[in-house]
Formats: sequence, C-alpha cells, structure tokens
Amino acid sequence: MDEVKIIEIKQSVFKNNDEQAEHLRESLKKKGVFLLNLMSSPGSGKTTTLKATINALKDRIKIGVMEADIDSDVDAKKIAETGVKAIQLHTGGMCHLDAEMTKQGLDALNTEDIDLAILENVGNLVCPAEFDTGAVKNAMILSVPEGDDKPLKYPLMFSISDVVLINKIDVLPYFDFDVEKCREYIRERNPNAKVFTICAKSGEGIDEWTEWLNNEVREWKK
Amino acid sequence: MDEVKIIEIKQSVFKNNDEQAEHLRESLKKKGVFLLNLMSSPGSGKTTTLKATINALKDRIKIGVMEADIDSDVDAKKIAETGVKAIQLHTGGMCHLDAEMTKQGLDALNTEDIDLAILENVGNLVCPAEFDTGAVKNAMILSVPEGDDKPLKYPLMFSISDVVLINKIDVLPYFDFDVEKCREYIRERNPNAKVFTICAKSGEGIDEWTEWLNNEVREWKK
Repeated sequence: MDEVKIIEIKQSVFKNNDEQAEHLRESLKKKGVFLLNLMSSPGSGKTTTLKATINALKDRIKIGVMEADIDSDVDAKKIAETGVKAIQLHTGGMCHLDAEMTKQGLDALNTEDIDLAILENVGNLVCPAEFDTGAVKNAMILSVPEGDDKPLKYPLMFSISDVVLINKIDVLPYFDFDVEKCREYIRERNPNAKVFTICAKSGEGIDEWTEWLNNEVREWKK
Repeated sequence: MDEVKIIEIKQSVFKNNDEQAEHLRESLKKKGVFLLNLMSSPGSGKTTTLKATINALKDRIKIGVMEADIDSDVDAKKIAETGVKAIQLHTGGMCHLDAEMTKQGLDALNTEDIDLAILENVGNLVCPAEFDTGAVKNAMILSVPEGDDKPLKYPLMFSISDVVLINKIDVLPYFDFDVEKCREYIRERNPNAKVFTICAKSGEGIDEWTEWLNNEVREWKK
C-alpha cells in the first residue's frame, strides 16, 4: 500500500470563521460535494464507524476522507485500506479545525471526483463544537462506555450535531447506560437531532444510518 | 445537602504560564498542600475514580476537590456526597485550566485545612496537557473501552502524566484491549510513569493507587 499523504495544517489568519464557513459551504454546493464533519471523544470508535460507513456506501457514491489528528497517521492508513481516498491532516497541537483549515484539507484531498467528503475531526467534545468547519452536516459519536449523561456535560456539542450515533451498543449489558434517557437528554438540547444506535464493529444499525446519509448526499447534489 | 459552590473562572491575563505554575507550586509547598491534577477524556470514569480515591483516603488526610467543567454541577454534587469539601469551577467554554485559573479555584476552595487538593480537569486529552496547572503531580485515566492505542494518538498527555490509571478493567473481556501492549506504549512515551490497573466501580486496584498517592502527599508535606 502507498504511504498516506500527510498535510501539516496552518493556523487560520481569518477572524470571521462563520463567514469563511458559509463561503466554503456555498462553493461545495456548486461543486456538488457533501462535507460531513464527524466528531467524538477519543476512543468512541470514530475510525471503526467510518470504515463501516464507507463499506456500506462506497459502491454507490464516491467518498474521500480527511483524518485530522494532532500527530500520527494510524487512522488514515486504516481508512486507506477500504480503498477510498484518504489523507491525514496534522493540526500541530490544535484541538479543532475551523473552516479555513478544513479548506486546506479539501484542497489537498482534491474533491473533483468526490460526492461525499468526510472530515474526522480531532477527538474532543469541547473545541470542535465551537467552530463551524463549513460542513453540510455535523455528526457525532457517543459510545456506550462514556455514559448516558454526556449531553448534560457537553451541551454545545450535542446542540450543534445534526446526527448522534450511539455506538458500541453490543456492550450495553455491561454498563449503566439508559438509551431512552440518553435520547431524552439529546432531545432536550437539540430536538431536531437524528439519533441512531449502532455497533460499528458488528455492523448493527449501520444500514439505517448510511441510508439517511446517502439521502442527504443526494438531496445536496440536486 | 447544601448547594455546591460554583465559581465562574476568568480567563488568565498572564502570558507566562510556566512561571505562574512554579509560583503556585512553591506557595503550595509552603502551605503543605498537595495539588493533584486529574485528567482524562469524557466518560473514562473520572468522578467514580475520584469518589473511590476519596473514600479510601478521607479518614487519613484532609481532601478538597475542584470539579472543572464547561457547564453543569453534576460532578461536584456527587463528590460532595462523600463528605469532603467540593466546589465546581465553570470554565466558560474554555477547554483547559492554566495555573492562574487553578489558583482562582484554590482560593475559592480555601486550602487552609486541606492536605490534598484534587483538580478534576476538563474532560479532554488534548488541551489540558498543554498547560502546567501548578500541580505537584499529574494523573490521567485511560479507560479500557477507549482502546490501548491512545498513548500513540495523544502522546503529550501521556508524556506529562506521572500516573496513568487504566480504569474499567472489569470489562476487559468485552474489548480488544491489551494491557501489556498499553503499558509498553505508555513506557515509550514516558518511562517514569506509574501505571495502575483499577476498576473504580468495584474498588479493584484502588488500594495500590491510593497508597502511592498517600505516600506522595506525606513526602510533599515533609
């Protein structure tokens, strides 16, 4: 396998991130590229979920992935194994990506032949929530072992996420995690959020989530 | 139970955090107060570990706790139930605490009658690693469901932690987590880090960890 391309992201010079994010979204709309911003804490299963998502969709739409990380390229290598285009973004210690940093990544990825570009954001429930990346939709993963009270503790992350994937439902018997209570907490913060329960490892629930995503991509390209 | 005291932390005006941290450590040494900075990602079991730690030590040393969080006071309430002094620090969206912010917390906690002050830092493996809080020791929790590869992905956090608590070992049978491999990854980043395997919920391993902590507090007070 070829080595994964690594991009060292530069800090943004722009003051108005919201404006930059709107510009980026408009330009993606013109090109017919759907950008998904995927967020979570470390260890919630982002890369495994991403691999399951890619495998479910790669024969129907063309996918490219940007793996953002402080360091290392382990995730991008795992994604490249699925056969889709994957690059690694190094943030140089920064705990989030903003729109201009995301644009640097998209330029390096080259979205000409891509329908769905996925940004795997830095593993963190705080900082990434504060910056609009220019994505069409924000998705986040909450894994069962993290606890059902996370919407109470990280309200901003849940309020800006269009989709919440509750992952690792295979270990529900071993943790005090109440799915209905968690859905209620999410609803309180964000009544419009779609919630899917999945097990990325076994594939449970992946069809429902990827059908939704596939429809969103098709709507965006109209 | 009385309501928990909530402190709204102000952003620091000091440029040189390392200098502020040294000042704070010196003043804690003079007062005989040991400050422990406890870090982890969201959902790793920080509050449960803290409760187990307090229950093991509270009859031998006087403990005070500062719960830092972006919002909410759920954790401080849980800690206050153990009978030790606990206050809540709101960071107003900031993803870490630096030395001056920690000092605001210690002033509000009032350390006059305290041997061990514990700062439960914001749930995040990135930002808190970058700022010396003035603590005597840094401890971090890595929980089994997060994966044994985290030392590779968050090297700074592991390299600045004096102690790593591998938590939730009761669920080892249900996850691909290799404790020996994890110890090796930690050693590569930080040969001096003490590693304890614990289950905060059942109390397994808590004695070994709290004995170590108790000795450190006694050494500091000499």
